[in-house]
Amino acid sequence: MSACYSFGKHLVKGSQVFFRSGLSFGFVNRKPVLPGHILVSPLRVVERFRDLTNDELADLFQSTQIISKVIEQEYNATSLSIALQDGPDAGQTVEHVHVHVLPRKPEDFKANDEIYDKLDEHNQVNFDGDEKANWRTETDMSKEAGRLRELFDDVYTKPV
Amino acid sequence: MSACYSFGKHLVKGSQVFFRSGLSFGFVNRKPVLPGHILVSPLRVVERFRDLTNDELADLFQSTQIISKVIEQEYNATSLSIALQDGPDAGQTVEHVHVHVLPRKPEDFKANDEIYDKLDEHNQVNFDGDEKANWRTETDMSKEAGRLRELFDDVYTKPV
Repeated sequence: MSACYSFGKHLVKGSQVFFRSGLSFGFVNRKPVLPGHILVSPLRVVERFRDLTNDELADLFQSTQIISKVIEQEYNATSLSIALQDGPDAGQTVEHVHVHVLPRKPEDFKANDEIYDKLDEHNQVNFDGDEKANWRTETDMSKEAGRLRELFDDVYTKPV
Repeated sequence: MSACYSFGKHLVKGSQVFFRSGLSFGFVNRKPVLPGHILVSPLRVVERFRDLTNDELADLFQSTQIISKVIEQEYNATSLSIALQDGPDAGQTVEHVHVHVLPRKPEDFKANDEIYDKLDEHNQVNFDGDEKANWRTETDMSKEAGRLRELFDDVYTKPV
């Protein structure tokens, strides 16, 4: 996985990607809201949920399901927040469908849904803000992606 | 659609249901966070996202996609919040997978993700609280479901 992946107008380095199916990919975050907060996207740059083909849709959520199981276990979580901000007025800032997966634990946030305020903030910082100083280092992201990659069947992690 | 549908330990009346595919159903809310806030569930009582079969998963999100398009247009929205609270520590209160779909508009909430606080509150009130006084009337729900039902192809709305 050394190639780069398109994510809206951005590029995600292969070192950040830990999962790849026929039509989707999973990657770690520059600034996760919680440890283990990852994103799953269709390989094709598709702006809105409604634009996904049936095959992309099925593949995206089957990938999300496979990834979710691993993420919940790996981060010792008990639950998962799975969210799709579909369009700018729902908080979407990158014009490429992406499913947020966040491992959740009892009382990880004071108010259970405070996590979504963090998600909103996260989007701004992650791709549209200037706060690059807060980003994780590439080494850090690449380490996490490498660790996660080992938890999946080879079929999902072979180099492109 | 006069039959009742299982929703965790609860029953949803057919009059509240506006969409039915082979493996999923869509229904209106007792206490929507926003007008047009609806739920989509697998017909089988499945507690967690990980428990869905591939067929259920594909059907659930294809149904969600079909419903989303109609909901966004019908409620004059520009975006959609699509969320799955998977497990109690993510705010899930009914032990049956359900996808929240909420039509969004510019500045419908002061803070964009305030909607999720409302979602949390909503879950409590909707199925586990005692605040039945705040529920919409059955007539009201049945009217909305009836109106929505007309917006889908017959194949998704035939009586069971």
